[in-house]
Amino acid sequence: MMSFLVNKVFIFQILYIVGISAESMSGTISAGRKNMDLFGVITIATITALGGGTVRDVLLGHYPLTWVGHPEYIVITFLASAIAMMIAQHIIKLHKFFLIVDALGLVTFAYLGSDIGFHIALNAVSPQFQLIGSMIVAVLMAIITGISGGVLRDVLCNDMPLVFQAELYAIVAAIVGVLHTFTMILNIDNLVTAILIILFGFIIRLCAIFRNWHLPKIKYFT
Amino acid sequence: MMSFLVNKVFIFQILYIVGISAESMSGTISAGRKNMDLFGVITIATITALGGGTVRDVLLGHYPLTWVGHPEYIVITFLASAIAMMIAQHIIKLHKFFLIVDALGLVTFAYLGSDIGFHIALNAVSPQFQLIGSMIVAVLMAIITGISGGVLRDVLCNDMPLVFQAELYAIVAAIVGVLHTFTMILNIDNLVTAILIILFGFIIRLCAIFRNWHLPKIKYFT
Amino acid sequence: MMSFLVNKVFIFQILYIVGISAESMSGTISAGRKNMDLFGVITIATITALGGGTVRDVLLGHYPLTWVGHPEYIVITFLASAIAMMIAQHIIKLHKFFLIVDALGLVTFAYLGSDIGFHIALNAVSPQFQLIGSMIVAVLMAIITGISGGVLRDVLCNDMPLVFQAELYAIVAAIVGVLHTFTMILNIDNLVTAILIILFGFIIRLCAIFRNWHLPKIKYFT
Repeated sequence: MMSFLVNKVFIFQILYIVGISAESMSGTISAGRKNMDLFGVITIATITALGGGTVRDVLLGHYPLTWVGHPEYIVITFLASAIAMMIAQHIIKLHKFFLIVDALGLVTFAYLGSDIGFHIALNAVSPQFQLIGSMIVAVLMAIITGISGGVLRDVLCNDMPLVFQAELYAIVAAIVGVLHTFTMILNIDNLVTAILIILFGFIIRLCAIFRNWHLPKIKYFT
Repeated sequence: MMSFLVNKVFIFQILYIVGISAESMSGTISAGRKNMDLFGVITIATITALGGGTVRDVLLGHYPLTWVGHPEYIVITFLASAIAMMIAQHIIKLHKFFLIVDALGLVTFAYLGSDIGFHIALNAVSPQFQLIGSMIVAVLMAIITGISGGVLRDVLCNDMPLVFQAELYAIVAAIVGVLHTFTMILNIDNLVTAILIILFGFIIRLCAIFRNWHLPKIKYFT
Repeated sequence: MMSFLVNKVFIFQILYIVGISAESMSGTISAGRKNMDLFGVITIATITALGGGTVRDVLLGHYPLTWVGHPEYIVITFLASAIAMMIAQHIIKLHKFFLIVDALGLVTFAYLGSDIGFHIALNAVSPQFQLIGSMIVAVLMAIITGISGGVLRDVLCNDMPLVFQAELYAIVAAIVGVLHTFTMILNIDNLVTAILIILFGFIIRLCAIFRNWHLPKIKYFT
């Protein structure tokens, strides 16, 4: 049982590192298009990678922040940004590959975000709404963890956030959050369900990328 | 006395719900002009409605945030946004009506913000400046609670914040904050003074809307 | 020894007040170019001056924020903004003078930021990385304290943040953070080393201003 838990922790640590590396690279590419200097690029990369978890933890009062307690993640982010600068030409050719890696990161962030959100909300929500209320907070935190890094990247690059316009991105985070919260409520939150949820979210995201699935843009002004 | 307090709490809860609904609708309208998808619209609506109190509470370290402890407010925000999408055509015709509802929300947010700011600052400010210092913090929190939702809406829509350019908005929040802080210091903070302050702020805001009252734009570059 | 400590505290208080005054004036000038009203100008000025320390303390969960505990700094910020509006014509002529004052502020903010970051991280980082990890957090906090005010100013004025494009600014904060952290680790954190570090950072920043030192813009897209 113990080794089972360790395995889940270990797998999510790998996925988390994959996720922040992919986000750091995406920030590096965005900043590179904006004529920023070396410092600007690394800053945008770091904020893109670690911004989602940071916004979530600040909103939940969940201190210390991940990267304050584990500054090794900052080092990983820097390295990923440096590598992205060196292989920038190839990243553009490898565009689809990076979208896939980014999708893994998104799903991982959402899974971890709903975990933290659910447990903190359980103690904060008034008893009569405890389960449904904690679920709402958990799903919001899945979305916030998944997208805030990219939103901050776009605001700091003076663009309108892509996630508000583009294909299924936030909704994938929401689906992962909903499913993970159900497994926590039903007490079946284990390695198997975790992998199934991660895979399911990942596949939907891939469909959005490769089959152009997207949410409707509702034209309510004509 | 007890029922008296309950009544004040009850009235402010109604006003708060009116306020977040109006703000959510205003966010929905802004986002709709920006070609966002369904998710983007609801996100902007939620941030517009709940952003002011969130920024205030994060600055004060006042956890859990209102909507983490009461996720029912998130549901109300979503519903208001959905309604706004359905009646968008009419909202534009009802423009003045929504400005009036928004004014009620602004004044309510400012009143509640100065309450929380004052009480937290009382314990934080050094004794020699306690009253004047807490008053300054209370007024700032009235302003921050009143305007941050709209500022975040504009930043995320990649506009320059309206509140920095437009008619009397923040100053109404400041006036409400000053008056409410005086009633707290003078120990006359009750239902009657609350209603008088709310009404007074509301009337000034209506004058700004219908009589075009505004702050001077100081031309210090000629 | 006691009077020695008092002197260090006193000198940093003076430097801090110089710093927030300079930042407030720089915010006033930026906002004045954007056709904002009186309220908008003062808000931008205040956020520019106090935003760096605020972002740092929110990220560290370090409450109450400086200006909640010491609202007198808010008053100083307001006064500096009012003075800047009155002498705006001269500020433009005195451009270089203000850059110099701003440089003093930057270096001071970075010094104070690394102090707080280091001590909070010491208790948060896992033991095997304690010193190197706390150093990384301290340097990040030096940078965050130094630049966040200006970044918020630019985002709220709907510009792309200057600090990501311009001459050596953040890197000066980083250098100050690194040096100060070394003095804390080596237990030689006293008035003499503090003054040397402040002077050293100040001189590098002056070289950036007057000799146009800057970081390379890496062209990784050709």
